[in-house]
Amino acid sequence: MLSREQNVMLTKSGPGTPMGELLRLYWFPALLSSELPEPGGPPVRVKLLNEDLVAFRDEKGVVGIIDERCPHRGVSLYFGVNQGCGLQCAYHGWTFDTQGNCTDMPSEPPESNFKSKVKIKSYSTIERGGVIWTYMGPEDQEPPFPNLIWNTVDESQVFVTKRIQQSNFFQALEGGLDSSHISILHKGAFDYNVSGASDIKKFITNSAAPKYVVLETDFGALMGAGRDAGEYGTYWRTTAFLMPFFQMVCPYSDEPRNGHVWVPIDDETCMNWCLNWHPTRALTEQEIENFKKGLGIHTDLIPGTFYPVQNKENDYLIDRGLQTSGKLFSGIKGVGTQDAAMQESQGAIFDRTNERLGLSDAAIIALRRMLLRAMADLEKGTYPASLQSNYHIVDAPAMVLPKNETFRTKIFEELKYGVPVKNQ
Amino acid sequence: MLSREQNVMLTKSGPGTPMGELLRLYWFPALLSSELPEPGGPPVRVKLLNEDLVAFRDEKGVVGIIDERCPHRGVSLYFGVNQGCGLQCAYHGWTFDTQGNCTDMPSEPPESNFKSKVKIKSYSTIERGGVIWTYMGPEDQEPPFPNLIWNTVDESQVFVTKRIQQSNFFQALEGGLDSSHISILHKGAFDYNVSGASDIKKFITNSAAPKYVVLETDFGALMGAGRDAGEYGTYWRTTAFLMPFFQMVCPYSDEPRNGHVWVPIDDETCMNWCLNWHPTRALTEQEIENFKKGLGIHTDLIPGTFYPVQNKENDYLIDRGLQTSGKLFSGIKGVGTQDAAMQESQGAIFDRTNERLGLSDAAIIALRRMLLRAMADLEKGTYPASLQSNYHIVDAPAMVLPKNETFRTKIFEELKYGVPVKNQ
Amino acid sequence: MLSREQNVMLTKSGPGTPMGELLRLYWFPALLSSELPEPGGPPVRVKLLNEDLVAFRDEKGVVGIIDERCPHRGVSLYFGVNQGCGLQCAYHGWTFDTQGNCTDMPSEPPESNFKSKVKIKSYSTIERGGVIWTYMGPEDQEPPFPNLIWNTVDESQVFVTKRIQQSNFFQALEGGLDSSHISILHKGAFDYNVSGASDIKKFITNSAAPKYVVLETDFGALMGAGRDAGEYGTYWRTTAFLMPFFQMVCPYSDEPRNGHVWVPIDDETCMNWCLNWHPTRALTEQEIENFKKGLGIHTDLIPGTFYPVQNKENDYLIDRGLQTSGKLFSGIKGVGTQDAAMQESQGAIFDRTNERLGLSDAAIIALRRMLLRAMADLEKGTYPASLQSNYHIVDAPAMVLPKNETFRTKIFEELKYGVPVKNQ
Repeated sequence: MLSREQNVMLTKSGPGTPMGELLRLYWFPALLSSELPEPGGPPVRVKLLNEDLVAFRDEKGVVGIIDERCPHRGVSLYFGVNQGCGLQCAYHGWTFDTQGNCTDMPSEPPESNFKSKVKIKSYSTIERGGVIWTYMGPEDQEPPFPNLIWNTVDESQVFVTKRIQQSNFFQALEGGLDSSHISILHKGAFDYNVSGASDIKKFITNSAAPKYVVLETDFGALMGAGRDAGEYGTYWRTTAFLMPFFQMVCPYSDEPRNGHVWVPIDDETCMNWCLNWHPTRALTEQEIENFKKGLGIHTDLIPGTFYPVQNKENDYLIDRGLQTSGKLFSGIKGVGTQDAAMQESQGAIFDRTNERLGLSDAAIIALRRMLLRAMADLEKGTYPASLQSNYHIVDAPAMVLPKNETFRTKIFEELKYGVPVKNQ
Repeated sequence: MLSREQNVMLTKSGPGTPMGELLRLYWFPALLSSELPEPGGPPVRVKLLNEDLVAFRDEKGVVGIIDERCPHRGVSLYFGVNQGCGLQCAYHGWTFDTQGNCTDMPSEPPESNFKSKVKIKSYSTIERGGVIWTYMGPEDQEPPFPNLIWNTVDESQVFVTKRIQQSNFFQALEGGLDSSHISILHKGAFDYNVSGASDIKKFITNSAAPKYVVLETDFGALMGAGRDAGEYGTYWRTTAFLMPFFQMVCPYSDEPRNGHVWVPIDDETCMNWCLNWHPTRALTEQEIENFKKGLGIHTDLIPGTFYPVQNKENDYLIDRGLQTSGKLFSGIKGVGTQDAAMQESQGAIFDRTNERLGLSDAAIIALRRMLLRAMADLEKGTYPASLQSNYHIVDAPAMVLPKNETFRTKIFEELKYGVPVKNQ
Repeated sequence: MLSREQNVMLTKSGPGTPMGELLRLYWFPALLSSELPEPGGPPVRVKLLNEDLVAFRDEKGVVGIIDERCPHRGVSLYFGVNQGCGLQCAYHGWTFDTQGNCTDMPSEPPESNFKSKVKIKSYSTIERGGVIWTYMGPEDQEPPFPNLIWNTVDESQVFVTKRIQQSNFFQALEGGLDSSHISILHKGAFDYNVSGASDIKKFITNSAAPKYVVLETDFGALMGAGRDAGEYGTYWRTTAFLMPFFQMVCPYSDEPRNGHVWVPIDDETCMNWCLNWHPTRALTEQEIENFKKGLGIHTDLIPGTFYPVQNKENDYLIDRGLQTSGKLFSGIKGVGTQDAAMQESQGAIFDRTNERLGLSDAAIIALRRMLLRAMADLEKGTYPASLQSNYHIVDAPAMVLPKNETFRTKIFEELKYGVPVKNQ
């Protein structure tokens, strides 16, 4: 349970807010490369951290993300023409390049040289694996591009989609680190997704109340959920949290890995980035076909939008018959949609001043503590260690350990996943 | 004309408001039994007095009305599974019975016994004649179930529907007690509804400005409207008001009686319960068929919802030709829809600080006074007399009295309808 | 750039606001005559300057504009019956004539004579050339009806439409006086509209940064934009601004003239009146056919509404292919729709505290100054000179002047268009 002030701190991301300042220190995904398919093509609107922006790919292929509004008379540059040196406002022709410089101002006499005095807000971009990333923070604080695994492998090894979620980003992030709902909410859902791994499914289904371990690291945290594996010992699943809103979930066997990024659009809406990747090989056609079915973490979208077909307005097309039959506990098809249904039903901004957390909420409690601490540190001028990190987490492993071996020892000392934070 | 403060007092019904506290002392209809057709079926959302709730019929057939939100992480129990001992949250499986007890908590280790410390808000329910009633007040103040006539007769004698109205409940209640609009707004509408009774229709049509008498009683008030009946004397029609928002209208002859209940959903929306019943016999098939036509107090609904087909957005499908022809004064089909059109057009919450009341508004003025007084009394710790009442009003009579007989004498002394309030 | 206070002053038009008081001193168009086609026909809702009103044409053909709400119980008179002496409320039959007098009150006993004490808000109307004008100011300040050219010629010489724009009226008015966007935003659009006049199109296309002259007059201002006409000298185009929100644009040759009026509906919506007229002859069938195509200042409307088919929700059906091809700079069809796209994209109420004005914005700067001054004067009890004016501007001329002749001399001294304001 949080105070009202803490809840505001964790959920508001506009310019000047503590969370807004913190998030703006990191690179994060802004849009799919496919949204800007060709040099000189039409711009698209993109709202990030409560800022209205437009993105465009100039005629040289460089992607710019700039203020949506022309500084002259405030009209939307969405209607602008992408040509020559930049995006030209449809109203009076003021033109801005990807760096925000005003490169043309036909409505003013050239001798006034007014254009040299006008600059528009613009943010750095880097394109990697079909995704356009942006950095919206202070110029002199720009960190290195994060070597998250999916950013370091070949594009053929990654499958990525995004969808809009009608909730604050933080409750989505909390849901992503909450290992304990897997045995309940997703009961029956894995039948659609996992082939083989029947032992593991049994471990999960039989053990709704696992042991939880949260290990803070320089990049975020490794969260272990240990379930009884009978004669084999304990089945440990890892969820990795990478500051400030990245998540990686361990695989069941050697299938492609899952990951998410939850980026605030505004305080009541977020972009849910869903990633599958394999660390060592290209994804197979069959795997990609399965992803596209919308039964796993990816979701069917309303054509021409990033809004899911199954959404809040239609109760996610819940099938009460399927639910009652016991075949699919939630009655809602799709692992990602099941999560969205829960998270959106918490309200646009979940009110954390009135909740009852249990032992199974250890990861959520740790997440809040880490982010509140990072905001407090930043306020005092101390930047997060994770900015320096090379995001060297390679994979979020799942493993069966003998009863006498601890998750902590194994993952820190043997696998050298992450560096433990000193004050633990 | 009221002060702004009085208007707020009469219209706001959330927890802790004066009107909210008053309404919560009474039993009232919450949903149709047919919304929860079978034991163990899916739950439904229900909002009452500004509280978000879910209703479900457990596997034993008992109806529970509990908080919509799971106390753990605030997700909606609407997505829950109704099985075993109660409604199980789809997220982590916490389960609540109809009394609000947490009966299962699979995500926590059993030894913590956390579930015994968690209880959810729940309200009493009683099912009667196809309607589920609830009591949302303090446990130690629960009154006896109200013996309104339609609650005491056989189900075959009652026909009941509900619809959602896009206005505050209080202006709907005022409209229900306002006898003077009958001759105007509903002019032409009775041709669709009443067969026979031609004398009576003449009395009503010829006399738009009747005499009004308001007699306060222990249960609410009896409101008489007297119209000239020529050689016969005076034709008196009674509208009964039963605290806090029940109404009964007298019949024209021996056809089924009309009644309404207006229950706040939130401050800008209410549930309009429409009832027909006959005190001594089953309703005929023909009568039921007529009710279903949507021309009387019942209304055609958009399938799968409780929203009327004729509504605010489509101007109630007003037929200007019919209006101009003089056949149907309002041009809007259906007595109930005519009322809804007027009441919704007053605005979501009618502003009573700026109105011009006349002699014909005696019932409305009395209604406000009674409720303001009941709220003031409750504030001082005095509970309404109507709670003790057995709602012994049997019928709201219509009668032709000789000119020398008063409505008051007849109805109080001869018919013994209600007990006059002392201070009158 | 304005202060927040100035921005509020220029944009809010409700009763009691400085701009509201100023606008209410003038006659302006309220609705099309065709919206009230016949005596005794159904009333229509009309919202003007943030006031909810209904208009009706009584059985004698006189148009009344009165308060939407019946003063009795606040229901909408839109549902009323237009018959006999006025509009009769559908609820209790209170009836109001076009002057706002209560002429019938059937629900009250006649002897109370209550009706003589009840009066409803009503505004003066005058019908001219297919348009119903209203005056909403103090009775003792009603000015003469404005002799704008289109009000003085035969109806066959005028073509007029209205559409709803989703923005504050003031940014629409600013756009109408902003001559510098013509060469950019409307590039390619004139090909659809102007036949002949190829020299002039060249002058405009070749000169995006004209010289600007603003001449204030007793009625408003004459705004000249001078473009290089090569050997001919300078091509001057005049835009006339007539207080408080009328505009006339000069023709390219002798084709029909263009004019606009932007009337606030509420603070975030305005009515855009679009006029074409010819000072000396009837419009031809071909011209009218062209206007109806929606490619000029008139716009295709969603049938049964005044909402444009091309609108904010569908990005004005922008055709990116047409835009990229260079054939139509904005990619948006229709001169009027191009303007609407820009103005609506400035936001519901454009925030002028953060903009970068240039030399080309001279007309906009003058407009704001004039209106701020008029509001300040009115506050001190000085009424605008334009109220006394006979709106004697005959036409907003376009003319090619030799380089040594000034716009000011020509238009003031030779053409005697308007009287210069003394303090210039």
